[in-house]
Amino acid sequence: MVARLSRLQDAIDYQFKQPELLEQAVTHRSHNAKHNERLEFLGDSVLNFVVASLLYNQFDRIDEGDLSRLRANLVKQSTLADIAQQLALADYLRLGEGELKSGGFRRPSILSDALEAIFGAVYLDGGFDAAAYVVGRQYQPILLTVDPKTLGKDPKTLLQEMLQGRRMELPVYLVIATHGAAHSQIFDVECRIDRLDIVVQASGSSRRAAEQAAALQAIDQVQAIEPAKPSRASRRHRPA
Amino acid sequence: MVARLSRLQDAIDYQFKQPELLEQAVTHRSHNAKHNERLEFLGDSVLNFVVASLLYNQFDRIDEGDLSRLRANLVKQSTLADIAQQLALADYLRLGEGELKSGGFRRPSILSDALEAIFGAVYLDGGFDAAAYVVGRQYQPILLTVDPKTLGKDPKTLLQEMLQGRRMELPVYLVIATHGAAHSQIFDVECRIDRLDIVVQASGSSRRAAEQAAALQAIDQVQAIEPAKPSRASRRHRPA
Repeated sequence: MVARLSRLQDAIDYQFKQPELLEQAVTHRSHNAKHNERLEFLGDSVLNFVVASLLYNQFDRIDEGDLSRLRANLVKQSTLADIAQQLALADYLRLGEGELKSGGFRRPSILSDALEAIFGAVYLDGGFDAAAYVVGRQYQPILLTVDPKTLGKDPKTLLQEMLQGRRMELPVYLVIATHGAAHSQIFDVECRIDRLDIVVQASGSSRRAAEQAAALQAIDQVQAIEPAKPSRASRRHRPA
Repeated sequence: MVARLSRLQDAIDYQFKQPELLEQAVTHRSHNAKHNERLEFLGDSVLNFVVASLLYNQFDRIDEGDLSRLRANLVKQSTLADIAQQLALADYLRLGEGELKSGGFRRPSILSDALEAIFGAVYLDGGFDAAAYVVGRQYQPILLTVDPKTLGKDPKTLLQEMLQGRRMELPVYLVIATHGAAHSQIFDVECRIDRLDIVVQASGSSRRAAEQAAALQAIDQVQAIEPAKPSRASRRHRPA
């Protein structure tokens, strides 16, 4: 057991005094053993707190709402699953036979839960400072690239802010067609930004989804036309 | 400033090295000063983590779902507002004039936010152990009285579990009347437990609310008939 997990301990840069805690953290409840769900509960909350603290210190001028949005994005399943993948966590998971056969070791929910459980196990084994170190070590590279203005915002919001920053009118969304039966409708939506001669179309299973997909395309086009947000000075020379 | 807040520091049993952090924690954003919203973000997450850790240690056999339910109940606004009241936090709040006039110092949301902000301020001032001590000191008395089987469960769930524990059939809920216009309907609901000859009625603005109110009454009646859960032995003598 200890040999198998020693590489994982190297990867997270923490050596357990009680390696059975790490063993439990990588044990899914489908496995016939002490599983990781309680550790995940603990790890989820230590993760939330450590990331909150990192964000608080790094961004000293953004407000509570933006801090919450950033944190939600950093602790969501897909972010955790990415970290789990970098740690090759799938190689260490202990799953029941059914989960094993259906490829459970690749499932983002199982990977992210196990990663949270590892954070909880480190806290139990080494206390808060150890957990803060292990979490911080995974998040420091991510935090270097975080743009607090955009991370976690949906495309419609981003497009709107982008246009407001350029003092332009808001985009116009129009449902141009719907297909399919009532319970499985597909919406075709158009997004227009007249000032920039942009007209894009996208489809989705809800009006909102189609609008978000259209906004994403429109963002690309806006950026192609005006690569960087113009400075205050250059903006002054444009017609209002 | 320091004199005014020294009683509050005594109440939470923590002396600030940077009392300006405590001052900020009791400052509502309606006040024209550096307010407590960012501290609240930090405090909310340290509180969640410390309570998670306390629960994890105190209840070593309950599962993740029950731990989450307990924690949600312990960190909810009304629990926090109760703690704030015991600390006489209203006496220290700094509010804008509008909030002051409308009695903002009594509002549970303002009190609970300020309490979370204080936890965040203690963390910034004294580190994690200080915050864990201050949070733990407020929660230890509450944790002594927590019943992990019932805390935070709604009346319908509690009634169902109560009857299942007595090996009885589930209660039957019936809507017996509705009154009022479509947008402001009142539902009259009956809850029957035939085996115990219990029939109670209650009303509510939704079917669910009426059922919960009826379940609460039914719980009282079941407890009046069978004060304590009978032991396994006594249950065996009853007709099945």
